[in-house]
Amino acid sequence: MPNYQAPLRDLRFVMDEMLDYPAHYAGLPGGEEASPYVVAAILEEGARFAREVLLPLNQSGDKEGCLLEGGEVKAPKGFKAAYAQYVEGGWPSLAANPAHGGQGLPPSLAMVLNEMVCATNLAWGMYPGLSHGAADALRHHGTEAQQATYLTKLVEGTWTGTMCLTEPHCGTDLGLIKTRALPSDDGAYAITGTKIFISAGEHDLAENIVHLVLAKLPDAPEGSRGISLFVVPKYLPDDAGEPGERNGVVCGSLEHKMGIHGNATCVMNFDGAKGFLVGKPNKGLACMFTMMNAARIGVGIQGLGLTEASFQNALAYARDRLQMRALDGAKAPEKPADPIIVHPDVRRMLLTQKAFAEGGRMLVLYAAQMIDIVEHGGNAAEKERAETLLGLLTPIVKAFLTEVGFEATNEGVQVFGGHGFIQEWGMEQLVRDARITRLYEGTTGIQALDLLGRKVLMSQGESLKVFTREIHKFCEAEEGNSELAEFVRPLAKLNREWGEMTMAIGMKAMSDREEVGAASVDYLMYAGYVTLAYLFARAAKQARVALSESTQEAAFYRAKLDTARFYYQRLMPRTRAHKAAIEAGAEPLMAISAEDFGLGFEI
Amino acid sequence: MPNYQAPLRDLRFVMDEMLDYPAHYAGLPGGEEASPYVVAAILEEGARFAREVLLPLNQSGDKEGCLLEGGEVKAPKGFKAAYAQYVEGGWPSLAANPAHGGQGLPPSLAMVLNEMVCATNLAWGMYPGLSHGAADALRHHGTEAQQATYLTKLVEGTWTGTMCLTEPHCGTDLGLIKTRALPSDDGAYAITGTKIFISAGEHDLAENIVHLVLAKLPDAPEGSRGISLFVVPKYLPDDAGEPGERNGVVCGSLEHKMGIHGNATCVMNFDGAKGFLVGKPNKGLACMFTMMNAARIGVGIQGLGLTEASFQNALAYARDRLQMRALDGAKAPEKPADPIIVHPDVRRMLLTQKAFAEGGRMLVLYAAQMIDIVEHGGNAAEKERAETLLGLLTPIVKAFLTEVGFEATNEGVQVFGGHGFIQEWGMEQLVRDARITRLYEGTTGIQALDLLGRKVLMSQGESLKVFTREIHKFCEAEEGNSELAEFVRPLAKLNREWGEMTMAIGMKAMSDREEVGAASVDYLMYAGYVTLAYLFARAAKQARVALSESTQEAAFYRAKLDTARFYYQRLMPRTRAHKAAIEAGAEPLMAISAEDFGLGFEI
Repeated sequence: MPNYQAPLRDLRFVMDEMLDYPAHYAGLPGGEEASPYVVAAILEEGARFAREVLLPLNQSGDKEGCLLEGGEVKAPKGFKAAYAQYVEGGWPSLAANPAHGGQGLPPSLAMVLNEMVCATNLAWGMYPGLSHGAADALRHHGTEAQQATYLTKLVEGTWTGTMCLTEPHCGTDLGLIKTRALPSDDGAYAITGTKIFISAGEHDLAENIVHLVLAKLPDAPEGSRGISLFVVPKYLPDDAGEPGERNGVVCGSLEHKMGIHGNATCVMNFDGAKGFLVGKPNKGLACMFTMMNAARIGVGIQGLGLTEASFQNALAYARDRLQMRALDGAKAPEKPADPIIVHPDVRRMLLTQKAFAEGGRMLVLYAAQMIDIVEHGGNAAEKERAETLLGLLTPIVKAFLTEVGFEATNEGVQVFGGHGFIQEWGMEQLVRDARITRLYEGTTGIQALDLLGRKVLMSQGESLKVFTREIHKFCEAEEGNSELAEFVRPLAKLNREWGEMTMAIGMKAMSDREEVGAASVDYLMYAGYVTLAYLFARAAKQARVALSESTQEAAFYRAKLDTARFYYQRLMPRTRAHKAAIEAGAEPLMAISAEDFGLGFEI
Repeated sequence: MPNYQAPLRDLRFVMDEMLDYPAHYAGLPGGEEASPYVVAAILEEGARFAREVLLPLNQSGDKEGCLLEGGEVKAPKGFKAAYAQYVEGGWPSLAANPAHGGQGLPPSLAMVLNEMVCATNLAWGMYPGLSHGAADALRHHGTEAQQATYLTKLVEGTWTGTMCLTEPHCGTDLGLIKTRALPSDDGAYAITGTKIFISAGEHDLAENIVHLVLAKLPDAPEGSRGISLFVVPKYLPDDAGEPGERNGVVCGSLEHKMGIHGNATCVMNFDGAKGFLVGKPNKGLACMFTMMNAARIGVGIQGLGLTEASFQNALAYARDRLQMRALDGAKAPEKPADPIIVHPDVRRMLLTQKAFAEGGRMLVLYAAQMIDIVEHGGNAAEKERAETLLGLLTPIVKAFLTEVGFEATNEGVQVFGGHGFIQEWGMEQLVRDARITRLYEGTTGIQALDLLGRKVLMSQGESLKVFTREIHKFCEAEEGNSELAEFVRPLAKLNREWGEMTMAIGMKAMSDREEVGAASVDYLMYAGYVTLAYLFARAAKQARVALSESTQEAAFYRAKLDTARFYYQRLMPRTRAHKAAIEAGAEPLMAISAEDFGLGFEI
């Protein structure tokens, strides 16, 4: 069975040493609760829960899958008991508002724990995971009564939530949805339609399931401006607020998927189900975006967790597996062959995983500080800046960390050789589970359009400048630091190039809108590599500082520098390929007609 | 269910127009049999077989998998009947020597058909697929009696073959094998040991199974110089040459795998099984390489077939699925949304698949001509040149086409969005099936060492020069052709760079052998991109020639030019990233110690 240890030392490095979380938490209203002592205790307890409770259920859950019988879904063995422990431990309420029964700790802390959950059991993690989005939507847009009825239960964890957006004929293009909401006399609505790909749409972990559903009112305008959001519980709450009458929403079938078998992906049939409007009529899409932004960061964390899980197990295997001798002479002459970690190409794969795990962690924790500030923090100017940066970083966190997460989990399989393809070792499951992260909550292509079209170009590049200015300041401050020159010089150059390239795309896009779509995914990947370069430069600075002081952990800081160097020399150069692809523009993509694509095989 | 049409038009382009197969076949001894008429008829019949017989069994075979009961393995429903049709149709004997019952057609023709098999049912294709390697080993190294007994049956297809190399503790490093061969009085050997990952090791498709097994004689030298090859039949042939007594080799268990579920991947237990030495004692590894080289090209073709299959289905979906409007205005205003093929990023994904499918096809057919010459062809100088080129191209065909095949099948999933993750659509199966191709018959890392270390550097770059000179000559000849300048100029530059970069690696490797391993995989990918660039330039030339004549198929040739352009502008720039990674050298990989890799999580 795969092993896992939460990367507590690396978390401490990023949080305490590099991003100064203690000061960050101390500066948040109510953040004094998150003292270093409390944070450390929570992380350790979370690490234990992930390792001891969730990890043992990951392979068995994948093998067993979910079972639909008579409209009820049974999650794999052990999932329900693990969820009960999770609720018992107070985990769902960790970062929720005390007004709704939460513990009021900063959201970033929940995100750190989420990495551990995703690393050990992604399929399980999606049962509580979807509740956050539903809770967010109700917190921002629900009435007080709705909050009292549903939000408190979601925070407590006794009920879970879903996001019901997709229909058979529409995923990305929600303007096309057909689900209808008919007003009834009691002020409620009768919801009718079919939703697909509903994660945790039906299961036996919680007492009740709270569906947040997009549907159209009878008089709704066409397209995406005519969508409303409804809360539709599986059981209608009775007068005491407990699950009462069964509502008209049932799971019609379960999808058979490539991965995340332990999570129930449901077709949900709404047949005049009783629903209650959340927010204003026809403004549902905006409400839904509240849920989606948090969910997108959450999916990025999934990519990170799977990367770390794959890395740890590939590393153990590479130290253990004996095969061939090192090219420059035996390293373990007493053994029949050397451990494969001596081979440069195996190291390349492991370092790729390591760099993406540590780089991803820095990115998530950097973005998490913005979330803390947006949710709880400081003055208006700080909030605005955090919101802008977070808007820019969200599609990068989501798409970049899932793209490289897929690469990293595949490298894990590759380190295992043929054994990586065998289910028993658990490495191929990480790939299958990782595959969905590039798709759901908006594909990489959609994230890329959000980044380049909506966030960067629609703000005339202003949102990007908030970030590139920060990078520029860092480079300027370290310009004279010869110890960091290997990082700071290439970073400064890349940062300038990013701005210039963005301008160039913007100019081209003015005469041809297709240029945005043509550049988008390469632009997102480019942006991801620059962002990680910035964070690795900061990590290197921190490591240099620690090494210059007397430290008992010199090996840790030297390894951090080695990882940063590997990243700069072997991964960052991928920006060259992305830049060239971006500069090629739309013409090579648009020249061929839809008909002519198939002339090689269509007769 | 996924659809498939063999790319007959594209095959005609590559074979007849670009690589002049008619003249190539006419020049082969016995090649006159392969007249254009015969070739066309065979390809059409093969296309029909793949589409009508194999394709319908692909998803069902994946779902059902193989069943082991009482030492016997049942392949999925329909596999046996399809195999009977295959044998009935004379497919196994197509390219075999008439002396062994073959039809004596060129090997390249069998390779073209193999693309169709791999595109429609990879798991099924591996039952007959492994026989080729076994037959090759017996043809080259077997005694006349062994050939009469086993080879004719393999050629006929009534028996199938396997390659038994891997053991639990060794895959790449065959010097470590423990399986023993004890001489017995009758001149045979008693084989005892355990082999794992044996594809088609046990099944119900054929009357008998011929295992080619690596084992050690009692007095064998240590390591890879002490390995011998044995033929070990499941049933010992009786006096009439028909399956007789059951031999002591049984399937102990089936592996549970990520993909190719329809193929039985067996643990094979040899318990004093009767075996017969093939070739000389202790020279088994050399004999095995005969099997492996053909098998490696075969795996490259698997990557190609899966790429084409994924492309065709993604294309159909992209034309059909309506979602969002084109950024520059509605393209199908009569519909509720535009088909997603209007979106530049969807086109980028489809064109990536298309370019790798068409580029891979050119590469396979280019290498296939070398195989024809090596096996059947011309004078000594031609043979030597073909052998050198084939040696260079084999690891590229194997590793590059499977790496980009994995990318391409993943793009297919991505075009389908969330639906790509659902088994029903068949796109995720292609990814799972493609995943093994990067691993078996030598991982990408092993192929890369073979290319850079064994083929390129051990020949002092001479083998590479055979190829780069050919590219150089092409560029020189087309230098004045302004219509091709967009291809020829960058190609000439890249070709020069390839040579220079190889020299630089060679110099560095003289003082540090680890430089070879550090550069290898990036070098292989770089080599693959240059190779495809050369072939796309030749395709572009051919398309220009056809367009300058009056043709009714101008659209086909324009699409070919568009694809070449896309390749040059959006894929070839990846060489920039690989070059930078190569030039970074071994230092960033070797600096960190094996212990320090885990300091972020190991406490």
